Amino acid sequence: MKFGMIGSGSWGTAIVKILTDGNHKVTWCVRNEKMIAYIRQRKHNPNYLSSVNFNTDLLDLTTKPEEVFRQSDAIIIATPSAYVISNLGGINSSDCVGKKIISAVKGMLPEKNLLLNDYLKSQIDFNLQDYHTIMGPCHAEEVAAEKLSYLTFSGLNESFTEEIAAHFKTPYINTVINSDIYGVQFAAILKNIYALGAGIAHGLEYGDNFLSVLIANCADEMAGFLRKVGIMNIEVGVHSKPNPNRPRKSPNYAASVYLGDLLVTCYSLYSRNRTFGNMIGKGYSVQSTQLEMNMVAEGYNASKSIFKINENINADMPIAETVYRILWEQMPASEGFNKIEWGLI
Amino acid sequence: MKFGMIGSGSWGTAIVKILTDGNHKVTWCVRNEKMIAYIRQRKHNPNYLSSVNFNTDLLDLTTKPEEVFRQSDAIIIATPSAYVISNLGGINSSDCVGKKIISAVKGMLPEKNLLLNDYLKSQIDFNLQDYHTIMGPCHAEEVAAEKLSYLTFSGLNESFTEEIAAHFKTPYINTVINSDIYGVQFAAILKNIYALGAGIAHGLEYGDNFLSVLIANCADEMAGFLRKVGIMNIEVGVHSKPNPNRPRKSPNYAASVYLGDLLVTCYSLYSRNRTFGNMIGKGYSVQSTQLEMNMVAEGYNASKSIFKINENINADMPIAETVYRILWEQMPASEGFNKIEWGLI
Repeated sequence: MKFGMIGSGSWGTAIVKILTDGNHKVTWCVRNEKMIAYIRQRKHNPNYLSSVNFNTDLLDLTTKPEEVFRQSDAIIIATPSAYVISNLGGINSSDCVGKKIISAVKGMLPEKNLLLNDYLKSQIDFNLQDYHTIMGPCHAEEVAAEKLSYLTFSGLNESFTEEIAAHFKTPYINTVINSDIYGVQFAAILKNIYALGAGIAHGLEYGDNFLSVLIANCADEMAGFLRKVGIMNIEVGVHSKPNPNRPRKSPNYAASVYLGDLLVTCYSLYSRNRTFGNMIGKGYSVQSTQLEMNMVAEGYNASKSIFKINENINADMPIAETVYRILWEQMPASEGFNKIEWGLI
Repeated sequence: MKFGMIGSGSWGTAIVKILTDGNHKVTWCVRNEKMIAYIRQRKHNPNYLSSVNFNTDLLDLTTKPEEVFRQSDAIIIATPSAYVISNLGGINSSDCVGKKIISAVKGMLPEKNLLLNDYLKSQIDFNLQDYHTIMGPCHAEEVAAEKLSYLTFSGLNESFTEEIAAHFKTPYINTVINSDIYGVQFAAILKNIYALGAGIAHGLEYGDNFLSVLIANCADEMAGFLRKVGIMNIEVGVHSKPNPNRPRKSPNYAASVYLGDLLVTCYSLYSRNRTFGNMIGKGYSVQSTQLEMNMVAEGYNASKSIFKINENINADMPIAETVYRILWEQMPASEGFNKIEWGLI
């Protein structure tokens, strides 16, 4: 299987490391020619995970996404969700024939509020059987340091999924597979909202006792949403054709790709979502927090995306909804959390 | 309802604070006459939570457990599990008539490897309807600081349980109730084993990615054990008589008393279990860790208690079992964790 990578941020770089450590060739689309020259000469990404040295014999560097599709059997997309559409704009149905697309994107595509698979389906002739995801609790920095990490690969066809996952097995990566392509993608989005909420709680000076109650309730709220998403996708038949001979049961939401990823994101003191939330909790406005941090935390847009999606799904999500109202509707953080407090179990 | 407290450690002291802040009188059994004189004069516990000042008009101090039973309608037991039997040794069936016993004990009684309710049942004429528990993610230090915390009250009779819980409601304590008296007590024991395991992982230099996977899998393993305990207690009829008109469904194991308590214990850097585990992971023996820390972490004895209990319950508990083997059977920590790694999801 020949792999391609679109994305040269820290997560894309970490995945290229994993594949090349397994001696796989990777056609890697990076930002510009200067970056190609830099990687060839200095053997590492100039901007991210600079401790990771590549065997450049295994890298086929390009700046053209089409080239990645041409050269590869399996194309991994690992750009921030905001850049996916601009990167894939030139791709058409014929580019995708016989190819597998593996999403490592953690977010809805903002212009459309769609998951990558639903966006692709809306643009090109694309079979959901060929779509896979790589998710899990995985700070790229710890991959760079070769600390044991777990990646979950999801796809509708178990043997395809197993085959793909096998290529990522290294001494520091263990792999898990499941078939819940919608659930794992939504979990990766929801966790950022909850980490932002944990940051707000910290900024409001709640303690560790409360934080643990909040995060446990976030896990429960996430599972409730994912259960409904799963049922909805079967009922309305969004792409997936469930096999009636193999009744779908709820995934185990304590698994690393759901609860584990939520925990590593909420408890990381270095998470941008948590830092962003902390400032909001301390009374800064969204605008001044963005200026101060010189960036937007993923949970900010995610809270709006999920709020809109949940207008159809109608899951009970008081925590995610409160984060949305604090960030987007100027609800005072303390008022929002006073309301949340009463419903926690 | 007149409350009594047996236990003058940090958790007992925190509970007395909660009750007296709600203007309840408490008959409080403390260690010795010197301590009584100290509390009367200085208004705080000499050994624990010294920032907590009591309205001593609300305290009836004694050194005799029997006196607490005589004076109170509801007796809270909040001593370390190792001291419960010596404290309750003089209590007989007639002392308990019409009384409610509320356990805040977090552990099996070591001499018997029994939960407090099963020990009481073995000693005196005692109705399980009169037994309640107070559990939840609640560092006593944060109660002292009046940081919002959640306590879960469990009992077989919902209206009794609600009545008791209502007395603990303060501006900084929210209460939750359920009927899972076995599950909440076992969860409080299991979390210490898992926190010790998290400490071992840290000592072995696993990173945050792995830690989140480990703790998520601990949550799953705990839920599996508790489900089996619940079923077993119904099947063999241990005290509880399930009402067939009200079928028992599994509790929500994401609730604060299960997952929340696990999280606050595993992620607290100041937890004795975690510190103990960390030294084991770094290669110290159990003996030298005990000498160095001048104490035994609860998870140490708990791992043996649960290992023995699970010989009957047969839940799938690779993590708790590995912690047991590392601590009690000299399995090298790295070997134990290498085995765990492969089964995590």
